[in-house]
Amino acid sequence: MYEDRIRRPALMDKVMSASDAAALFEDGMSVGMSGFTRAGDAKALPLALVERARRAPLNLTLLTGASLGNDSDGLMANAGVVARRMPFQSDAALRRKINAGEVMFIDQHLSETAEQLRSGDLKPIDIAVIEAVAITADGGIVPTMSVGNSAGFAQQAGRIIVEINLNAPLALEGLHDIYVPGQRPHRGAIPLLAPWQRIGATAIKVDPERIAAIVITDSPDSPSNALPPDEETDAIARHVIAFLAGEVAAGRMGPELLPLQAGIGTIANAVLHGLLDSPFRDMTMYSEVLQDSAIELLDSGHLAMASASSITLSAPVHARFIRDIERYRDRIVLRPQEISNHPELVRRLGIIALNTALEFDIYGNVNSTHVGGTHMMNGIGGSGDFARNGQIAIFVSKSVAKDGAISSVVPFAAHVDHTEHDVDVLVTEWGLADLRGLAPRERAPLIIERCAHPDYRPQLRAYFEAALAGGGQTPHVLEQALSWHLRYRREGSMLVK
Amino acid sequence: MYEDRIRRPALMDKVMSASDAAALFEDGMSVGMSGFTRAGDAKALPLALVERARRAPLNLTLLTGASLGNDSDGLMANAGVVARRMPFQSDAALRRKINAGEVMFIDQHLSETAEQLRSGDLKPIDIAVIEAVAITADGGIVPTMSVGNSAGFAQQAGRIIVEINLNAPLALEGLHDIYVPGQRPHRGAIPLLAPWQRIGATAIKVDPERIAAIVITDSPDSPSNALPPDEETDAIARHVIAFLAGEVAAGRMGPELLPLQAGIGTIANAVLHGLLDSPFRDMTMYSEVLQDSAIELLDSGHLAMASASSITLSAPVHARFIRDIERYRDRIVLRPQEISNHPELVRRLGIIALNTALEFDIYGNVNSTHVGGTHMMNGIGGSGDFARNGQIAIFVSKSVAKDGAISSVVPFAAHVDHTEHDVDVLVTEWGLADLRGLAPRERAPLIIERCAHPDYRPQLRAYFEAALAGGGQTPHVLEQALSWHLRYRREGSMLVK
Repeated sequence: MYEDRIRRPALMDKVMSASDAAALFEDGMSVGMSGFTRAGDAKALPLALVERARRAPLNLTLLTGASLGNDSDGLMANAGVVARRMPFQSDAALRRKINAGEVMFIDQHLSETAEQLRSGDLKPIDIAVIEAVAITADGGIVPTMSVGNSAGFAQQAGRIIVEINLNAPLALEGLHDIYVPGQRPHRGAIPLLAPWQRIGATAIKVDPERIAAIVITDSPDSPSNALPPDEETDAIARHVIAFLAGEVAAGRMGPELLPLQAGIGTIANAVLHGLLDSPFRDMTMYSEVLQDSAIELLDSGHLAMASASSITLSAPVHARFIRDIERYRDRIVLRPQEISNHPELVRRLGIIALNTALEFDIYGNVNSTHVGGTHMMNGIGGSGDFARNGQIAIFVSKSVAKDGAISSVVPFAAHVDHTEHDVDVLVTEWGLADLRGLAPRERAPLIIERCAHPDYRPQLRAYFEAALAGGGQTPHVLEQALSWHLRYRREGSMLVK
Repeated sequence: MYEDRIRRPALMDKVMSASDAAALFEDGMSVGMSGFTRAGDAKALPLALVERARRAPLNLTLLTGASLGNDSDGLMANAGVVARRMPFQSDAALRRKINAGEVMFIDQHLSETAEQLRSGDLKPIDIAVIEAVAITADGGIVPTMSVGNSAGFAQQAGRIIVEINLNAPLALEGLHDIYVPGQRPHRGAIPLLAPWQRIGATAIKVDPERIAAIVITDSPDSPSNALPPDEETDAIARHVIAFLAGEVAAGRMGPELLPLQAGIGTIANAVLHGLLDSPFRDMTMYSEVLQDSAIELLDSGHLAMASASSITLSAPVHARFIRDIERYRDRIVLRPQEISNHPELVRRLGIIALNTALEFDIYGNVNSTHVGGTHMMNGIGGSGDFARNGQIAIFVSKSVAKDGAISSVVPFAAHVDHTEHDVDVLVTEWGLADLRGLAPRERAPLIIERCAHPDYRPQLRAYFEAALAGGGQTPHVLEQALSWHLRYRREGSMLVK
């Protein structure tokens, strides 16, 4: 049994139940799990750990690629299994625990977690739990729909638990490209010069002696929860396409554009979807995650190929992808997230970075994580890796939220994840502000008139006008800077009645 | 005459006065000048442009490496020559113009300006003005005490004006290593694998036809204006050394440490000076600027070699450096600032980044540019290039300013240049907070108790306590978040009476 999945006979006797594998865990351990944007996450061990925690305290430090699916993050958080969590999450129950101060959440640039583990800045991983398609004869672990931090976790962990997911077809093998940078300071250049290049192995090489358990599962990834495009996201997509067409016309890039990155979520997915109506052909993606839109663009021929760390799809597109996988095999590469998001590569390739803002201020500082300046939404994810180092950093947002009660354009961002230095272009359904080469005082009118909802423009103009009286490189009326957020809390709307 | 300095005979007839060269400039042009932290700046053309502007309007966009010396920035600003300025400055008169909104200042990561010019995100350079030791027979421009953005400016500019500075000894030739990355997206890896490696040429290769004028000068760089170490900077240095000794003891680096970067200015210079009393040997620097402290560490043997983009020294150390230059020749490399600060290289080498904060908040967000959240001090410089991509990002500050009226540790930074994601260690004279792997709620008590001035700790504790009641990943009382800055403005002190 499972000979096609466990090709190293000596490992056959490591097959056990998830609950037996869960007995390997001890209170206080640091655990690294596969999983990135709900794809390729371990399915059985999270539940087994929840069971295990019913019998004795089990407070773990949990590291992943990014968000887990199957409500695992929430179930583990509610069971008290997760004392510390990094580098990203998107689960409602876990989010509540984080904002209540019950789970310590370390929100990280997604390229950095593996690097910090390698350099000893973070406590070493005791156990890695990696979902796999198969284990090769020489002990290589073949990941499923994401690579995430699995390579770093598996290579560093004292013990490895592999979840072989029979639901993930063997045909996924060959999609991955596992390259792990060496120890600093004597590290070579990463030899990747183009999005399609393969520089590593198709499996994660580990010492098979460290594989302590193999658990067999058979369940699908959680489907993507991105919402379909709507009128506003269509408008955002049109502005982005017009801007990129302008870049092509100005000779700053060819008709294939520069390699594209698009963040997780509804708006970025919708903007990419909008590229189906664009004149661009033979585009490439060098991104952290591929959503439905990437598959559609591959199908339509707009996209020549796509590199990422994860593929997260809706159920119908997932079914089609698996059915037709041979069509995609040569056009998709899945990499460790420290490679998909690596500053060296993002800068070298000159990425166009497309990410979502929660809010931004009139000078172009972006808040992408903290609701009301205090409460964590999901995390910064890879947005900083791409926005800082890419050629063009675009941030998109709808101009208002909560039926107009919240303006995404504010006088002063209540939390800053991306400073004005790292923000080139802002887009809402109303328009696009190209901020390149502009000083803050020049940015403000552009952002207000192009991006803000018309209902909020008079208030924003009044703020900027008052701020100018005080002078400065970045004028503000500090007394009023956070007043919009306070007004929303007090009156239920940022709009002055 | 000048045959040793102008080795291409055909260029001899380009020698002219600065005022004749100034006639090449036209209103509205974009001008790139050499100069980085007051070193290697053009000495004659700035004054000639000031003269020229008396006769007819001359509003230029002025790009440099970083700050100019010889009051050039201020003189040009006051004469109305500078309409737009990037990417850094440190001149009092220019600062006033910037904060009055009379000069548009684009504050940039120092690694990015050349990249933005190359990719067409900024208007092309019309004229480059480059200070040089000599022009070689094949038309290579040999820079003086800084490289800065000179290579990018000279290679791109329509016309080049070279200032041959007789005060800069010919012996400087050979110190520089000029490597310029290619066009994206088809760019190779930068082949630098160690701080001492040379990967380019010793001069900036240009088409000699584009050299439109050669002006002869004979005046020294402005001396460094860093203040001598004092009791507080000594204490900061001790904390940093103890921290680094701990890293060595933990096996996270060898006794030679990782390559060091230190920002411009008094505190960073003093901390490096403190390394004279450290147990570390054979250290390397991979920095943007070398100050007196670097020369002292080279002399003492603590430092094996140093790579940077600029050398800015006090008058006596400058004299000694020039006199003994043969002793330093093999131990110093000067590079373009996009190479000294390049994300690819900073990440590859695993730099220890040491930069100065104006203020930081209790969660570790750093303001390094804006006084009171609105008024520009100097600029972000290279701090972001190094802090984001290095292995350890250390920010140092004295705990108070203005005789205690301003606390450098505040509830909420009035401007954010470096987010908590990019800040590993904070240090004041009171102590050091190691924030690696900690969530915001864990960072706050550490920052308050280790770094804040004791007079301000009760206020900070009270703020954090009140903020916790509201919950969140990063708790705040938005009503009070900026109250410290307002209190200072209103009452002359952040301290509650």
